[in-house]
Amino acid sequence: MLKPCKKRGTGCPIAFALDTFGDRWSLLVVRDLMMRGRKTYGEFLESGEKIATNILADRLKHLEAVGIVGKLQDPENRRRYIYSLTEKGVDLAPLILELVLWSAKYDPESITPKEVVDRIRDDREGFVAEIRSRLI
Amino acid sequence: MLKPCKKRGTGCPIAFALDTFGDRWSLLVVRDLMMRGRKTYGEFLESGEKIATNILADRLKHLEAVGIVGKLQDPENRRRYIYSLTEKGVDLAPLILELVLWSAKYDPESITPKEVVDRIRDDREGFVAEIRSRLI
Repeated sequence: MLKPCKKRGTGCPIAFALDTFGDRWSLLVVRDLMMRGRKTYGEFLESGEKIATNILADRLKHLEAVGIVGKLQDPENRRRYIYSLTEKGVDLAPLILELVLWSAKYDPESITPKEVVDRIRDDREGFVAEIRSRLI
Repeated sequence: MLKPCKKRGTGCPIAFALDTFGDRWSLLVVRDLMMRGRKTYGEFLESGEKIATNILADRLKHLEAVGIVGKLQDPENRRRYIYSLTEKGVDLAPLILELVLWSAKYDPESITPKEVVDRIRDDREGFVAEIRSRLI
């Protein structure tokens, strides 16, 4: 398992952020929760990137340990958990939007519709507020 | 070596970005170039995070392969290279600033001075423009 918040002891904010959530699989789980309305282990497994079950279990534990993700027992199926982003996780929205903008510029195969890219550029705060209101 | 732009073929902009520069060491090298004025292999090695020589060499090659970093022979020492961010690399500035803001909020040990955090929040575009003018 990724160590929760492995400390390099430098106080560098960029290193701290990368140590907390900065591996690809963790951020793809955050994306699924934030942008795609996925909430269960089974739904995360279905993502196009085909995350392996052991990596998914590990990253969910890690994201819980660092306080980015929380979980509740599903009232309809007590063997299942419903995952959600905490406030700390929702606060990753602006960062996720920057990833989208950068890729829209540099990936010719990006699937983000031009209207969405323009909307993020022209009204970033409104876009973040919309994500927040959906999640919190 | 990290594969340049490993394709998962999903077209997801977040996956694309993470596949291109989304490992911790790559982004710490980008940070050194962008925020700390470091330009040579020896200077990157001196970073507080103590990157290993083989990882550093690998990540520099990767960042060149994906077009985020370029290099020139040092005119004063022909055995040395001077590294710099390309336009594509400089375009990571808004993302780096989001990492700084998030950590300033959640890391009690963050070394970013409050004035800098306030400045990024209040005048993000100006801050990005300043970084660009220093680098390009």
